[in-house]
Amino acid sequence: MIHAVIMAGGKGERFWPLSREKTPKQLLRIVGAKTMIEATVSRLSPLVPPSRIWIATAGDQAPAVGALLPEVPGEQIISEPVGRNTAPCIVLAALAIARVDPSATMLVLPADHVISPASEFRNTLRSCAAVAEKTGRLVTIGISPRGPATGYGYIKRGIKPVISGPRQFWQVERFIEKPDLARARRLVRSPRYTWNSGMFVWTVAAFLSSAEEHLPAIVKGLAPYRNLPARRLGSFLREVYPRLPSVSVDYGLMEKARGVLVTGASFSWDDVGSWDALAAHLPAAPGPGGNRCRGSFLGHDAAGCLSFSTGPLVALEGVRDLVVVATGDAVLVCPRGRSQEVREIVAGLKKAGKTDLL
Amino acid sequence: MIHAVIMAGGKGERFWPLSREKTPKQLLRIVGAKTMIEATVSRLSPLVPPSRIWIATAGDQAPAVGALLPEVPGEQIISEPVGRNTAPCIVLAALAIARVDPSATMLVLPADHVISPASEFRNTLRSCAAVAEKTGRLVTIGISPRGPATGYGYIKRGIKPVISGPRQFWQVERFIEKPDLARARRLVRSPRYTWNSGMFVWTVAAFLSSAEEHLPAIVKGLAPYRNLPARRLGSFLREVYPRLPSVSVDYGLMEKARGVLVTGASFSWDDVGSWDALAAHLPAAPGPGGNRCRGSFLGHDAAGCLSFSTGPLVALEGVRDLVVVATGDAVLVCPRGRSQEVREIVAGLKKAGKTDLL
Repeated sequence: MIHAVIMAGGKGERFWPLSREKTPKQLLRIVGAKTMIEATVSRLSPLVPPSRIWIATAGDQAPAVGALLPEVPGEQIISEPVGRNTAPCIVLAALAIARVDPSATMLVLPADHVISPASEFRNTLRSCAAVAEKTGRLVTIGISPRGPATGYGYIKRGIKPVISGPRQFWQVERFIEKPDLARARRLVRSPRYTWNSGMFVWTVAAFLSSAEEHLPAIVKGLAPYRNLPARRLGSFLREVYPRLPSVSVDYGLMEKARGVLVTGASFSWDDVGSWDALAAHLPAAPGPGGNRCRGSFLGHDAAGCLSFSTGPLVALEGVRDLVVVATGDAVLVCPRGRSQEVREIVAGLKKAGKTDLL
Repeated sequence: MIHAVIMAGGKGERFWPLSREKTPKQLLRIVGAKTMIEATVSRLSPLVPPSRIWIATAGDQAPAVGALLPEVPGEQIISEPVGRNTAPCIVLAALAIARVDPSATMLVLPADHVISPASEFRNTLRSCAAVAEKTGRLVTIGISPRGPATGYGYIKRGIKPVISGPRQFWQVERFIEKPDLARARRLVRSPRYTWNSGMFVWTVAAFLSSAEEHLPAIVKGLAPYRNLPARRLGSFLREVYPRLPSVSVDYGLMEKARGVLVTGASFSWDDVGSWDALAAHLPAAPGPGGNRCRGSFLGHDAAGCLSFSTGPLVALEGVRDLVVVATGDAVLVCPRGRSQEVREIVAGLKKAGKTDLL
């Protein structure tokens, strides 16, 4: 059976002041009427019903996740006691699935991406699952670059597809960490490079076998999870998890594993990594100027701005290319193109001890 | 005896979103801890006690004014049923004072200016009152221009003082309406031109005599106010006031009256006509960049900004020379130097029917 693991461990800095430590991006309604994690579950459901969906999240977010997703069984919401990047989290999820279905196929999907159409997304995953089951290989999904992005890792594929047909799969030649702009520009000239979407498909058996080889400390540390009685899992994790190395599955496993396959996404994809990236998903604001907004907005001689409000009216007069975000207790103003630097504001709040705004 | 009339009829557009129709600038705490009207009364009190202070205000603001100024007798808070500019308002105030003290000297002062030191302000007024009483002339106070402002009227005075001594008084040669920039630049080159402060000193008798000549329709319309029983004043005004012409005392009387005197202000003065003008009165914001703020603020690589918040944190990242104002229900963002255009936002709100934000 296909199980899905939704990775919902985001820290909620990039969408401050809307996102906070306890309500990171995946728990927000920033695109459409649903939270991103609800949208992710809905999108999957025709392929993987909630009874086979697992959510890996930070302990302090688990109650909110459970409240949003009552259809996902409570024991499938896995709380990480501390963040240890993606490798320990995915090993843990694989072991959790192995407890109930050792022959499962496993999809690993981020909770906070914007994807459409959902049917094409599911078709891609279905094909990946079939290939993973048939070949025993690890499969990942590459996104055709829309530009020389420096915020994503890249995947270099072989020249000829290993599997042909309506959907092609290539051997992965190399995983490339986030490049600088000059390198990104070179990469996107060749069709052999795609963005690393962070979506993976494999059988639990193949993944755990590869993890035993490349992530031995993590597998060794977490192995008892597979056989412990359910009532002891929580205390086991609280004891063991903080001691695990913090490493990404990309760096710790995918770059080292042999025979990894990649296929192209036949759906549109955006990880919406910042307020700037959100602009493309917001409706046009009333009036001229090409502003985009959600929430109450009034512009006069304002152009190219992104306005997002959970309540207060945002009134922009004579400004260009700004990001303005207003919540009940905080307002952010920064130029378009610099919204990732909101991390500096969050860092400043931490330094100033303004924990109520974090 | 000296009576003072404080003109508190502002409409509250220039400091939106802080100011609203029912809480215009004079009812706000934008400079210091007191509302501007409270500061005006305090500043006057050693010269004119609250028992001789009169407030002329819009009907819908009168309750708020009364609540802020319990020391001013309720019958001395004059409610204008509708706004008719300054001439009807000052004639009305003169008649109200004449009811109780026909030989009074009368100071006419705006409610929303920033003035210091208060002692020097009172000294100036005291001298003006003495001259007005001695000569029977209308007296006004000119402000030495700090630059070629186009937002004020100008007063041209004669070459030689009419009254010399520690404080000089000149004949007014001409009142000049708000000039364009080229003309303002020429005017400020000569010491004979000062800004028109909108502050006037005269005896009630001299003013009413001049008003009979230059504002006959207004005096005729309002004359019964002087002798009506107190209980009938309200209904009289509601009937008569809306029919009066809307005209300023500058245009309707001062420009036409003979023998008007002007003296220079020996105090610092600012009418704080916009968010931009407020910057000089706000404390420096924490951190580098020369930002100024009131309320919660956090800047990172922000410079030259003015931030004013009644509650929400204003976080500015990578922006220059912006005015940002945050209240519980609205946020304004505009460039420094353009804050007067907030009127366009207010107009837009009216058009959009968002009356809760007006």
